[in-house]
Amino acid sequence: MSPPHFDLTRLQGSRIVSVARLAFERPDTEFLCFGESDRKSPAAAVGALKAALDRGETLYPDVRGLPALRHALAHYLTGLHKQPVSEGRVMVTASGMAALAIGLSAILRAGDRVVLHEPAWPNAGNAARLRGAQVDPLALDARQDGTLHLDLEKLDRMLAGARVFILNSPNNPTGWTATEAELRAILALCRKHGCWLLSDEVYSRLVYDGGDAAPSILDIAEADDRVIVANSFSKTWVMTGWRLGWLIVPEGTRDALSELIEVTHSGVAPFIQQGGLAAVADHVTPPTFRAHCAEGRHIAADILGGVPGIRYASPDGAFYAFLQVDGLTDSLALAERLVTDHGIAIAPGIAFGESGEGWLRVCFAVAPDRLRRALGRLADGLAAFRARA
Amino acid sequence: MSPPHFDLTRLQGSRIVSVARLAFERPDTEFLCFGESDRKSPAAAVGALKAALDRGETLYPDVRGLPALRHALAHYLTGLHKQPVSEGRVMVTASGMAALAIGLSAILRAGDRVVLHEPAWPNAGNAARLRGAQVDPLALDARQDGTLHLDLEKLDRMLAGARVFILNSPNNPTGWTATEAELRAILALCRKHGCWLLSDEVYSRLVYDGGDAAPSILDIAEADDRVIVANSFSKTWVMTGWRLGWLIVPEGTRDALSELIEVTHSGVAPFIQQGGLAAVADHVTPPTFRAHCAEGRHIAADILGGVPGIRYASPDGAFYAFLQVDGLTDSLALAERLVTDHGIAIAPGIAFGESGEGWLRVCFAVAPDRLRRALGRLADGLAAFRARA
Repeated sequence: MSPPHFDLTRLQGSRIVSVARLAFERPDTEFLCFGESDRKSPAAAVGALKAALDRGETLYPDVRGLPALRHALAHYLTGLHKQPVSEGRVMVTASGMAALAIGLSAILRAGDRVVLHEPAWPNAGNAARLRGAQVDPLALDARQDGTLHLDLEKLDRMLAGARVFILNSPNNPTGWTATEAELRAILALCRKHGCWLLSDEVYSRLVYDGGDAAPSILDIAEADDRVIVANSFSKTWVMTGWRLGWLIVPEGTRDALSELIEVTHSGVAPFIQQGGLAAVADHVTPPTFRAHCAEGRHIAADILGGVPGIRYASPDGAFYAFLQVDGLTDSLALAERLVTDHGIAIAPGIAFGESGEGWLRVCFAVAPDRLRRALGRLADGLAAFRARA
Repeated sequence: MSPPHFDLTRLQGSRIVSVARLAFERPDTEFLCFGESDRKSPAAAVGALKAALDRGETLYPDVRGLPALRHALAHYLTGLHKQPVSEGRVMVTASGMAALAIGLSAILRAGDRVVLHEPAWPNAGNAARLRGAQVDPLALDARQDGTLHLDLEKLDRMLAGARVFILNSPNNPTGWTATEAELRAILALCRKHGCWLLSDEVYSRLVYDGGDAAPSILDIAEADDRVIVANSFSKTWVMTGWRLGWLIVPEGTRDALSELIEVTHSGVAPFIQQGGLAAVADHVTPPTFRAHCAEGRHIAADILGGVPGIRYASPDGAFYAFLQVDGLTDSLALAERLVTDHGIAIAPGIAFGESGEGWLRVCFAVAPDRLRRALGRLADGLAAFRARA
């Protein structure tokens, strides 16, 4: 009999994690390879969690989420976007990733075809592959000025026969952020092809045009469109480690999706949800964190603007600098060398698909001093790369 | 275009939840329909969680689990069972359910055949169905004395061509607990048929033979057998709402399964894991909770022993009374009537599959006074049923 590990489902391992593991062995490394800030979670959320524990709220939760949290999220999204979101469409999940995985489990059967734009955070595509789906990437067009664009004509052709389009705007890793006009065009194409739209909006609040949120599919879609929105507390309220997310599902489908949450992770700790409830009531943290990221974005533009041999445009959203390096054909090898020779961990573009090769992703959501030091190391490493090339 | 809810994956809704929702509308109802105690979670776990929050442990966790918790669980299981469990086989998950779902996602592809013994907690089978698998139940044999038995010859026939056998011993809902000899026979059959064995051992510590744990597949299987064990903090340390579980996977397969955790829920809050670490060090709660359940089991035997028209044997494990009612052909209707007419919510046997029809499941893990009052109501309801029949 063959060893058991020969017949388990396998996914491509993360190339971010492989860089990070190398970096963990070197204590002086600066980490800009994760999508995470060094700021603290809201004190109100921490306090609410502790108070819930003190009240003994440790029993099985409603798998749909605490009613109070579902209502609060509906109210929050109704205030943030151009159309109301009813409580009956809200479900709480054990992370933004869980929201995506559960949404996909409702939509996808083996053999279905999934379209996603690329470069892309790898987990959504991998969750689709885990369900036996075929994932077809649509590469964003990279222009000379370092900006990226979605080709809607190509999307139209690719959506024929597809089961779902996975949209992530503001985008990790590129910062690409769809305009409302682009969202309307995307929604029209999904309607035309009878295709589901799974919209990952975890970076919704991190935009730099002066607005409070990026254009959202919730601004324009009907409650009975084939649209599922995944979101999380991680990037809006600096709560990455809390593992708390939510889904907005079409009106009338929540009961069906509840059964899928039931057999995936079965609810979220009620005391964590109480922390989330306090976070939703915290209107200070999202703009404060956005301002923090805006400062990082400014520092990144300042330092990267002086580095020869790269193309870089400040992103419209999210908290990553995504830069193209002239002559780079092996971003993983460069990322490893940046760790070993320069003490800086960044994410190699290949981690986000073939179309990410030649690029690097740098998280700028960290404290200014640390960011300047880390980006200085990156600039040194890129100069050394240029000297070798 | 048809409404979107017409083409989502659907699972059979829980018949426990439908009884519970009826009961929630009636404030005076006694709830014995859930698998949950009214005792508190360990104070040490609560304190450790708060301390971790105070230390700011709110960043992304290692998706495999905190190293300290993985080591502690390996040490705990090595002490509890007859063979060592290495840390390299341990992964932390967002619940016992998540452990099962992730284990199944590694094993199952669409069209695979799954065998499970029945009556069965419905979620494991539904998680397999959600992956497009066919689930074949093997009904336990019910004897005149109210005990249940697994027919190994039938199992042998059913495992031919099956991909996985899902074992749950001690069993929810029946209390059936495999002997070590039965486990050896089951493992031999899985090896013979090249079939995976997914062993749900969440009730491992709730046995009433004077021992510290039920016979476990970890007592006998090799580290490279096609065996995955799912477990949870819920029933051992009274931590149902914490949503914390673990997997023991074959040696050499953890990296592959880590990628599946990554795209299912991506880790567990580090502060919850710190609570779990304190729980594993708490050697008092498991035997104390077992003694509490043993008292409930004694009360159940005492009261149900005096009820005419039922067959009931005290279970070997878990914390449920599973009783067969003479003449009962619609356990859901009776469960609803028990709520509306008698103020007692129990789980109808049909919730656990066709072979559970005619039975009722009653959780006895609650405080003695409350349990006596609730079982009194059940006895009244059963007398009324008998009068109607």
